Amino acid sequence: MTTTTPMQIGMVGLGRMGAGLSRRLMADGHTVAAHDVTPAAIDALAADGAVPVHDIADFVTALEAPRAVWVMVPAGEITHGVIAALAAALEPGDTVIDGGNSYYRDDIGHAATLAESGIHLVDCGTSGGVWGLDRGFCLMIGGDKEPVDRLRPIWDTIAPGVDAAPRSPGRDGEPSSEERGWLHCGPSGAGHFVKMVHNGIEYGMMAAYAEGFNLLRNADVGTPERQAEGQSAPLANPEFYQYDIDTAAVAEVWRRGSVVGSWLLDLTAEALHQDPDLDEFTGHVSDSGEGRWTSIAAIDEGVPTPVLTTALYSRFASRDQDLYAEKVLSAMRKGFGGHVERPTGE
Amino acid sequence: MTTTTPMQIGMVGLGRMGAGLSRRLMADGHTVAAHDVTPAAIDALAADGAVPVHDIADFVTALEAPRAVWVMVPAGEITHGVIAALAAALEPGDTVIDGGNSYYRDDIGHAATLAESGIHLVDCGTSGGVWGLDRGFCLMIGGDKEPVDRLRPIWDTIAPGVDAAPRSPGRDGEPSSEERGWLHCGPSGAGHFVKMVHNGIEYGMMAAYAEGFNLLRNADVGTPERQAEGQSAPLANPEFYQYDIDTAAVAEVWRRGSVVGSWLLDLTAEALHQDPDLDEFTGHVSDSGEGRWTSIAAIDEGVPTPVLTTALYSRFASRDQDLYAEKVLSAMRKGFGGHVERPTGE
Amino acid sequence: MTTTTPMQIGMVGLGRMGAGLSRRLMADGHTVAAHDVTPAAIDALAADGAVPVHDIADFVTALEAPRAVWVMVPAGEITHGVIAALAAALEPGDTVIDGGNSYYRDDIGHAATLAESGIHLVDCGTSGGVWGLDRGFCLMIGGDKEPVDRLRPIWDTIAPGVDAAPRSPGRDGEPSSEERGWLHCGPSGAGHFVKMVHNGIEYGMMAAYAEGFNLLRNADVGTPERQAEGQSAPLANPEFYQYDIDTAAVAEVWRRGSVVGSWLLDLTAEALHQDPDLDEFTGHVSDSGEGRWTSIAAIDEGVPTPVLTTALYSRFASRDQDLYAEKVLSAMRKGFGGHVERPTGE
Amino acid sequence: MTTTTPMQIGMVGLGRMGAGLSRRLMADGHTVAAHDVTPAAIDALAADGAVPVHDIADFVTALEAPRAVWVMVPAGEITHGVIAALAAALEPGDTVIDGGNSYYRDDIGHAATLAESGIHLVDCGTSGGVWGLDRGFCLMIGGDKEPVDRLRPIWDTIAPGVDAAPRSPGRDGEPSSEERGWLHCGPSGAGHFVKMVHNGIEYGMMAAYAEGFNLLRNADVGTPERQAEGQSAPLANPEFYQYDIDTAAVAEVWRRGSVVGSWLLDLTAEALHQDPDLDEFTGHVSDSGEGRWTSIAAIDEGVPTPVLTTALYSRFASRDQDLYAEKVLSAMRKGFGGHVERPTGE
Repeated sequence: MTTTTPMQIGMVGLGRMGAGLSRRLMADGHTVAAHDVTPAAIDALAADGAVPVHDIADFVTALEAPRAVWVMVPAGEITHGVIAALAAALEPGDTVIDGGNSYYRDDIGHAATLAESGIHLVDCGTSGGVWGLDRGFCLMIGGDKEPVDRLRPIWDTIAPGVDAAPRSPGRDGEPSSEERGWLHCGPSGAGHFVKMVHNGIEYGMMAAYAEGFNLLRNADVGTPERQAEGQSAPLANPEFYQYDIDTAAVAEVWRRGSVVGSWLLDLTAEALHQDPDLDEFTGHVSDSGEGRWTSIAAIDEGVPTPVLTTALYSRFASRDQDLYAEKVLSAMRKGFGGHVERPTGE
Repeated sequence: MTTTTPMQIGMVGLGRMGAGLSRRLMADGHTVAAHDVTPAAIDALAADGAVPVHDIADFVTALEAPRAVWVMVPAGEITHGVIAALAAALEPGDTVIDGGNSYYRDDIGHAATLAESGIHLVDCGTSGGVWGLDRGFCLMIGGDKEPVDRLRPIWDTIAPGVDAAPRSPGRDGEPSSEERGWLHCGPSGAGHFVKMVHNGIEYGMMAAYAEGFNLLRNADVGTPERQAEGQSAPLANPEFYQYDIDTAAVAEVWRRGSVVGSWLLDLTAEALHQDPDLDEFTGHVSDSGEGRWTSIAAIDEGVPTPVLTTALYSRFASRDQDLYAEKVLSAMRKGFGGHVERPTGE
Repeated sequence: MTTTTPMQIGMVGLGRMGAGLSRRLMADGHTVAAHDVTPAAIDALAADGAVPVHDIADFVTALEAPRAVWVMVPAGEITHGVIAALAAALEPGDTVIDGGNSYYRDDIGHAATLAESGIHLVDCGTSGGVWGLDRGFCLMIGGDKEPVDRLRPIWDTIAPGVDAAPRSPGRDGEPSSEERGWLHCGPSGAGHFVKMVHNGIEYGMMAAYAEGFNLLRNADVGTPERQAEGQSAPLANPEFYQYDIDTAAVAEVWRRGSVVGSWLLDLTAEALHQDPDLDEFTGHVSDSGEGRWTSIAAIDEGVPTPVLTTALYSRFASRDQDLYAEKVLSAMRKGFGGHVERPTGE
Repeated sequence: MTTTTPMQIGMVGLGRMGAGLSRRLMADGHTVAAHDVTPAAIDALAADGAVPVHDIADFVTALEAPRAVWVMVPAGEITHGVIAALAAALEPGDTVIDGGNSYYRDDIGHAATLAESGIHLVDCGTSGGVWGLDRGFCLMIGGDKEPVDRLRPIWDTIAPGVDAAPRSPGRDGEPSSEERGWLHCGPSGAGHFVKMVHNGIEYGMMAAYAEGFNLLRNADVGTPERQAEGQSAPLANPEFYQYDIDTAAVAEVWRRGSVVGSWLLDLTAEALHQDPDLDEFTGHVSDSGEGRWTSIAAIDEGVPTPVLTTALYSRFASRDQDLYAEKVLSAMRKGFGGHVERPTGE
């Protein structure tokens, strides 16, 4: 496909995501002016057709006004610094797009700072992981209406497009932007707010699958072998736990026709097919800001999200951040019952 | 499509599911002998080509040995009664398929009973909801290997088939049964066990979405209007909760390219498009056996499923089953702090 | 008892807590200079022996240096304003004690502001509810060592004293301050931090009791009467739920000799004795800042507190803050299964 | 004290609990006929005044009718066997007391079996841990009214008595049995049902404390030392997590005047005073039947107990029963984001 409205856009940060987005944009007919702290990254993209921008101050000459510069660098201090530099370099009417994983509260601050120079901030949450470069990214956008509307051809190029999923029953006519894969969610921060909640949901879904597969994996706890291990309490009803379930096959069968089908399940099926024991993993699971911010938003809103927060806490526990709590439990048990914990098991 | 191996099968229970399965089987070239407690239901299916069976004892003449009879009636007492009747009616080598939502522990009992007469029990968990009649059903099967293998053409007809989803990377050659949408999970009960866990996961995923959309819906709690309602505590940071999010549009945009895409999300997007306020619903959410049994299995296995059980408990709470607990909390608060609860709000 | 070291102290805020503390201090031989925005409150306490202070600026003459002024007003804006007024009124070397329910992060800010004028901030979390005026309060204190040490006679008077509980085995000799009921927990904010976690634990304990009594209350769900109500699913094992438990008697019996004895249980037993149905309560349970801040601290620390946060979320849910989430669940259920929720029950 | 109504009672099982109960009963003037599978245990108690019973069949001669025999052996198969033996040995009108940790559902079965011989079963949940031998035990009793009433002097001797706690406001006159520390909760199984819920609450309370102390212990995650460890994510607000809290002192101070005072806190304070690091414990925490049964009862009743079940699941997770679930999470993260988990930390 080729966009019917070629645009110019700056890109700061040419890592996997920034470079990929740039190539997707260029492939669709847009012009990309590219900057990175690493000159070699600029050269590499220039070799593919990008306009090299070696100094962030040069965007003002490399692009025609009103300009748009997409920032694709790590959230936090680095994004903060790049936005400050662009505040100094750009002109009134220009737009900075924060496409990273910024906290939506930071967007509100950045928008206020840039507004002092007459520059728009557009915050853009992007979902799609490493696959988005091929599939297109789901874009959740916040900020002023004017630049979001003006940059429509950019969003259309990056998003997956209406054909990426069957249209929902009841929707017809000209596809809305959300059907094409991008949405203007509201004023500054709204994009990253929606992306934050998206990731919170992702945590909950992932935990639902993980817990379910763990249940299947342990459907054999009643077998003599498992009971002999003594890792768990003697079962009152061992006859009900005699199954040796092929988790890889279950993940695969659920991909067709079941209620729990999803892209996350597709990925799980692939991973379990490669190694049903998942031996390469240790059990320590990281978390990122969005999962935490989601729960903080729930607390602020006074809205319960027990599943989402439980999923977050399970990750904390996976890293033994609950060790002292467990020791306190054992200390109490010893105190009132004289119980001495066994090394493992019940 | 037409099966290359037409088979004969009995069907007991001609409700929406049983009748739909029968028609799907007949459309693919199989012969269906149909029985129901309601004669009109038998006649209706006979008009579409089924062999009418007015007495459950007649299956033995209506079908050639080794026979297979699919039971598609409500789980519990009714299924129990039908299986007892079939135990008396069928002959050694025949097979009863329990396609309903039976507790896997009941399968183990039924299998033992039928085995006394030389009859096989095959338990078959089916997922796909009302859509399965068109899309095909995901089948999770337990029982002896011989009848499960012999009935392969039946499973192939009912399941969605390999084309219902892209093949997982790493899988090639002749598609496995799980890639065609059905899986022999293990001995008696294994099919319903896997289906049970499937539903437990479904509860968790549903709750993850529901909590997320509730968070989005309440992203405006900092607005003067919401604060004036006094339903929630005065916010320390109202400036961060000023968003009026279009939840229907968010559900739609997440369908394309995001990590949280799924069939459940597709359904949510459709429902929110029809009515973003969901005014037809009261907030009372039912639960069925599988969700409860999943948590009981977790407790028996000694395996934590905090997300799945939390999702279940949220449904209990949606029906105010926690009312007395809440009153106890208020009583304590009054006791130690002299607090008098406000009618609503913080 | 009478303190061996009478001191002078100012008190701002003569509500139930502030007036009660003042009387406890005066009864023990200390001099209290009292101020409130309501002149009548000042007069009332002056009638009991306090030095009336009609203008906050007069503390500097009413008390000898180095002065200490206890602030006992609502947390947030009001506390903030009083501290600002005291910052202007007091002199270097003086101390402001924030005895309210301030967020510990605000203490850090207040301490910095007061330090600019050479004034100490001491943050003091107080627990004991309405009973503390008789029993004494548990004091959790943060701030500089010098004023905390100097004010020791004040803490000793307000705290319950070592005799309020048997000494822990292994502790002997001169009782430590924590054995007398007050603790210098660390620098600014440490007192309110410990008080915050205290309240988080309180939420968890309260929920544990509340859930347990709800379980007991519903031990009759298998009786024909309850089953006939149709509020819950037909039980597979009604014979196990035929109990009509006297919750008031259970609360009382647990007070003597059981592992779950506590002051919260004492209060519950009293409330249930008055009315086992707790008819005066509606089921809406409020929450205050500390419970929320505790969970936010857990998220920041990366430490799981699933029980404490679950208890908090149950309060949110008690106020129907999860209504939209429940509707989303029902919408999904209708979408995939054609389920129509029943008005109540399963 | 000495009972005013000395009675005769048999005791089967002379371990720490059974022997202790026997001595407490004899010290109060009752006669104990003692049996154990280990003859030496019988001899030891006989030396202290008990009537030795070397064969379970001899209780019928050692005690006068109507007899009462207290069974204090491990729950499950062993209790089951002893009750069967007593069913054969005793006479109509006699009573068997199951004082162990039996599942209340087993009581219902045992009561039915014994009733066939005209023998009563009384189920008696006892709480108090190793301390109960001195403090007295809290007794939760189920079964027929007649034997429970008749055995009142036995309950009064074992329970702590009314003076063990201040009487609840509103209670006066002759102390009720629950004020003396024992309660007839209802028909067979009611005693162990209430004891089961008691233990469920105990799990929740213990977890509340454990989580809170873990939060306090990690209040220093913002210090340069902790941040340098890299065990947790870089904090956005390290200035709020600079506290080095003395958890032993906090546990002690909360014992006097605070809302969270309890016997469990007393035990925690003692343990933390001995070793605030709790180095003797590994972090593996066992669980026993009651905690599991409580959650199963909640599921059956359709009553949410999120805090109690969360506490149970935390124990499962402490024993790494969630390992495979965690690996599934990591596999998904690698799949969609190319994330490689770090050995520890964020």
